[in-house]
Amino acid sequence: MQEYDVIVIGGGPGGLAAAYPLAQAGKKVLVVERDLWGGTCPNYGCDPKKMLYSAVQAKSYAARMTNAGLNGIPDINWPNLMDFKRRYTIKVPAGTRGGVTKAGMTAVDGVARFVDDRTIIVNTEYYRGQDIIIATGVQPVVPQIKGHNLIKTSREFLDMDQLPQRIAFIGAGYVSMELANIAASAGADVHVIMHGDRALRAFPTAAVSALQTAMVAKRIHFHENVELSRAEELPNGVRLTAPGFTLDVQRVFAAMGRLPDQALTLARGHIQAGTRGIPVNEFMQTNDPHVYAIGDVVNKKQPKLTPVAGFEGRYVAEHLLGNQQPIQYPVIPTTVYGALEVSQVGVSPDAAADDERYQVKAAEVTHWYTYNRTQESFASVTVVEEKATGRIAGAVVVASGAESLVNLLTMAINTKTPTAEVLRMVFAYPSAASDLSYLL
Amino acid sequence: MQEYDVIVIGGGPGGLAAAYPLAQAGKKVLVVERDLWGGTCPNYGCDPKKMLYSAVQAKSYAARMTNAGLNGIPDINWPNLMDFKRRYTIKVPAGTRGGVTKAGMTAVDGVARFVDDRTIIVNTEYYRGQDIIIATGVQPVVPQIKGHNLIKTSREFLDMDQLPQRIAFIGAGYVSMELANIAASAGADVHVIMHGDRALRAFPTAAVSALQTAMVAKRIHFHENVELSRAEELPNGVRLTAPGFTLDVQRVFAAMGRLPDQALTLARGHIQAGTRGIPVNEFMQTNDPHVYAIGDVVNKKQPKLTPVAGFEGRYVAEHLLGNQQPIQYPVIPTTVYGALEVSQVGVSPDAAADDERYQVKAAEVTHWYTYNRTQESFASVTVVEEKATGRIAGAVVVASGAESLVNLLTMAINTKTPTAEVLRMVFAYPSAASDLSYLL
Repeated sequence: MQEYDVIVIGGGPGGLAAAYPLAQAGKKVLVVERDLWGGTCPNYGCDPKKMLYSAVQAKSYAARMTNAGLNGIPDINWPNLMDFKRRYTIKVPAGTRGGVTKAGMTAVDGVARFVDDRTIIVNTEYYRGQDIIIATGVQPVVPQIKGHNLIKTSREFLDMDQLPQRIAFIGAGYVSMELANIAASAGADVHVIMHGDRALRAFPTAAVSALQTAMVAKRIHFHENVELSRAEELPNGVRLTAPGFTLDVQRVFAAMGRLPDQALTLARGHIQAGTRGIPVNEFMQTNDPHVYAIGDVVNKKQPKLTPVAGFEGRYVAEHLLGNQQPIQYPVIPTTVYGALEVSQVGVSPDAAADDERYQVKAAEVTHWYTYNRTQESFASVTVVEEKATGRIAGAVVVASGAESLVNLLTMAINTKTPTAEVLRMVFAYPSAASDLSYLL
Repeated sequence: MQEYDVIVIGGGPGGLAAAYPLAQAGKKVLVVERDLWGGTCPNYGCDPKKMLYSAVQAKSYAARMTNAGLNGIPDINWPNLMDFKRRYTIKVPAGTRGGVTKAGMTAVDGVARFVDDRTIIVNTEYYRGQDIIIATGVQPVVPQIKGHNLIKTSREFLDMDQLPQRIAFIGAGYVSMELANIAASAGADVHVIMHGDRALRAFPTAAVSALQTAMVAKRIHFHENVELSRAEELPNGVRLTAPGFTLDVQRVFAAMGRLPDQALTLARGHIQAGTRGIPVNEFMQTNDPHVYAIGDVVNKKQPKLTPVAGFEGRYVAEHLLGNQQPIQYPVIPTTVYGALEVSQVGVSPDAAADDERYQVKAAEVTHWYTYNRTQESFASVTVVEEKATGRIAGAVVVASGAESLVNLLTMAINTKTPTAEVLRMVFAYPSAASDLSYLL
């Protein structure tokens, strides 16, 4: 039996954000990882996804500048792109594990199971912690239809040696939209199979509609209201079937969302958990106050994103080191890196439309200097203002560089800055930030 | 004699920023423009420059992604690029003039000369204003050497039908660095002739050095400590001569800075002015309190930039409408869009190095996720913090997307936000803004 001050189950962005400050503060820390050190994001999540997006982004910019000064559109070379991604991802597990041990923590590989309130077993070894942090994340959901073993996930998509000619994605959330855009930009015939008729339910209707229009223009096919019943193996692919619907593709990927691994949930023993994750209180404590849960494994209303897991990890470390304040989340921007970037933060325009406290300023801004300069096919900016204070409360940006403008507005919201003060600031000129004055 | 509440001399970004709110407040406003309505920036300054930069930016991104997923680098097609720019600039003068008259103001074309304290003459007409705002800007300086009539300016560069094969720029300020980068990216053999050995004197040494390295890698030649003595016409170009130095090019452009037009200065009658512009007090008033000066024509320590002129114009309008407060500038970011973007704001690291009140956090960050993702050749970020408050006081970013990160830090400075609070914010992930936590 080895004794630790804190055991962190899961060596991803959440767990490590908790582990490092605890180790730096002198705590004896154990980190357990059952898969790749670093977790989903850097190995087969947001980091490699956005590396593939780089090539798409560069190609798209060049394509937009055709007839605006550029001749020739570069091609995406999939094996070369995959090599670029792997040069990054290959170093992640060993680098992450090495960082953990170098910081004086113990790193153990394997699945952690609770044997009592404070004790876990990994492989054949027992470890006891005064406090335990569960940061085991989520796994992609695969539809439980006949032939479901033929359906792969984003993890496999992000590590394909070759690009299939014809690809289907099941689901129309952000993972599906992002990977569909990458695949289509790289030359694949892409099909998105939707259970209903609404993509990206967490984003405002107008923004989603603009994005879908841009994706259709890239020849991505959206199949709405399809309830898949089976997947069958073909000589060189998979046939997907639903009532009145048949689609043959080379490869099919489920992108229907992510849920905590149920087997892991069982392994947590006395910790209460539901299908959507582990409920926690305002201190990120589970039903056992010495067992915390952070990151995507938590059943919460905040979006399940890497920086949110990191924020929670840092919070729990502070809490264990004596901070008695409940967690207070900042506003959290969410971005879809699709055929257009769609990024939102704070109070949504859809919610503000029915709320007297807010006024909404919205405009299609494809004609703004910056979006004309970069030849956007479409751009829109929406800012939600709190009437009583004049403060910016929310924003949605649809444009190819949406993330930067939303990061700026995220800071405006966090610093409680009124629109009038933003208008008194001077930004790099001309830039999307300086264009913003046309709307405000 | 026509009578006006306010006469604005100069229909550029500064003058119009003053004119519009005055007209909206019911003032009778005259605007006089002697050249192109809209002024330097939209016609032959920052706006067209950054449109040409779009093609450079797109080409550069594609080039960087070679071996990282892309095959093929697009070429810059100069006539097509010029056409793209002209589609924008062609509409500026009439659009600007039309906006002025549509807002109920009077627009007059010609040079304005003072005939007494409150009266000007334009062409043959006299106009009297209760208040007069001078916003006549600056003109490029051309070296007064033999053959100086062969030396053109940025205005001509930004409107060339064809790209010359071999080009020289005289001077190493931001205009020279930006245009040199555009010309070299488009395929020209580019020479920068420096009077001394230091480019971009307003920017920190380390950042300038990184930029020059990137420009040399693009085969741009820097000729240091050259005191040009003459320019001579060649059958197909110009020969530049200095002691021990000869350079034959097709075209040569002066980019040695800008100063107010001396003839216009004389035309101002009783208004005191020096070579570097018109001195003003904290209300932007000249020696005559009813005559204001705003924008680049002012002799001031603030950088001569479009948004600063706009800020001053809006300030003077407010002042004329009753605001008694002196002008208070926000921090002003300045950006060079060169082979790398170099952007800075607030307290400079060079100044902070000798000042106990500040600490400087600086790092080469080429390895940051975002700069690796976009395959920067070099990136660095420097943040100056005020020790007593922990607030961000200044920043310098060198990277291809520097302007966005500096815009974000500009807001942090304006909102007096400490580093610790920035670290508690969640930004789009992974992005340059989220990478910033590695430095802070």
